[in-house]
Amino acid sequence: MTDVTKITSGSLIAADKVNGTDVYNPTGDKLGTVDDIMLDKKSGQAIYAVMSFGGFLGMGEKQYPLPWSALTYDETKGGFVVNVDKKRLENAPTIDEEDFVWTPDYGRSVDKYYGAPTYW
Amino acid sequence: MTDVTKITSGSLIAADKVNGTDVYNPTGDKLGTVDDIMLDKKSGQAIYAVMSFGGFLGMGEKQYPLPWSALTYDETKGGFVVNVDKKRLENAPTIDEEDFVWTPDYGRSVDKYYGAPTYW
Repeated sequence: MTDVTKITSGSLIAADKVNGTDVYNPTGDKLGTVDDIMLDKKSGQAIYAVMSFGGFLGMGEKQYPLPWSALTYDETKGGFVVNVDKKRLENAPTIDEEDFVWTPDYGRSVDKYYGAPTYW
Repeated sequence: MTDVTKITSGSLIAADKVNGTDVYNPTGDKLGTVDDIMLDKKSGQAIYAVMSFGGFLGMGEKQYPLPWSALTYDETKGGFVVNVDKKRLENAPTIDEEDFVWTPDYGRSVDKYYGAPTYW
């Protein structure tokens, strides 16, 4: 069986390959790693990348949704660049609560935090 | 750590959750299962779902790229519906060769097979 995660054309990339991609700030510090992508069900448009950051062996790790539009793929770095520094990231919206429910209000707060046009 | 694959809002779905989703034809026959999603790198738009079908324990299984625009999510079935019967699927373009390279020509042939507007 072909490993679909290896299949990329010049312009396409497999979602499985995006997961695990590093995320950097513009000065080159690694902020975290993409865990998953949130897509609009109907259009199939990626709206958020969910980035994990910090912790050790999965404990204490936090997950941050980043608006897709705030991410730029940097070929030379082999990762995404988002215009936010580590310090600011510490106060960014997370989705770590056990009973987390994604509401439009929460989505708007995420988009606002990163100065991204809102999806909601 | 929160399992991001469980997080859905009304309109968003995690890519990891799409993977494993069943694909049906309009008469309700199961055609296969989504293995991965191919996204446009820049826009983050889902262009193809890669569906696996047939085989046993991963042997003899084939992988078919389906244009995203040819898929409809059916809430009652809990899966995607694509307008193609099993027989026609047997001759559909696959990506199983070890040395597979995704070219624009290949992409156009996939889009044409399903009567979808071409991405290329």
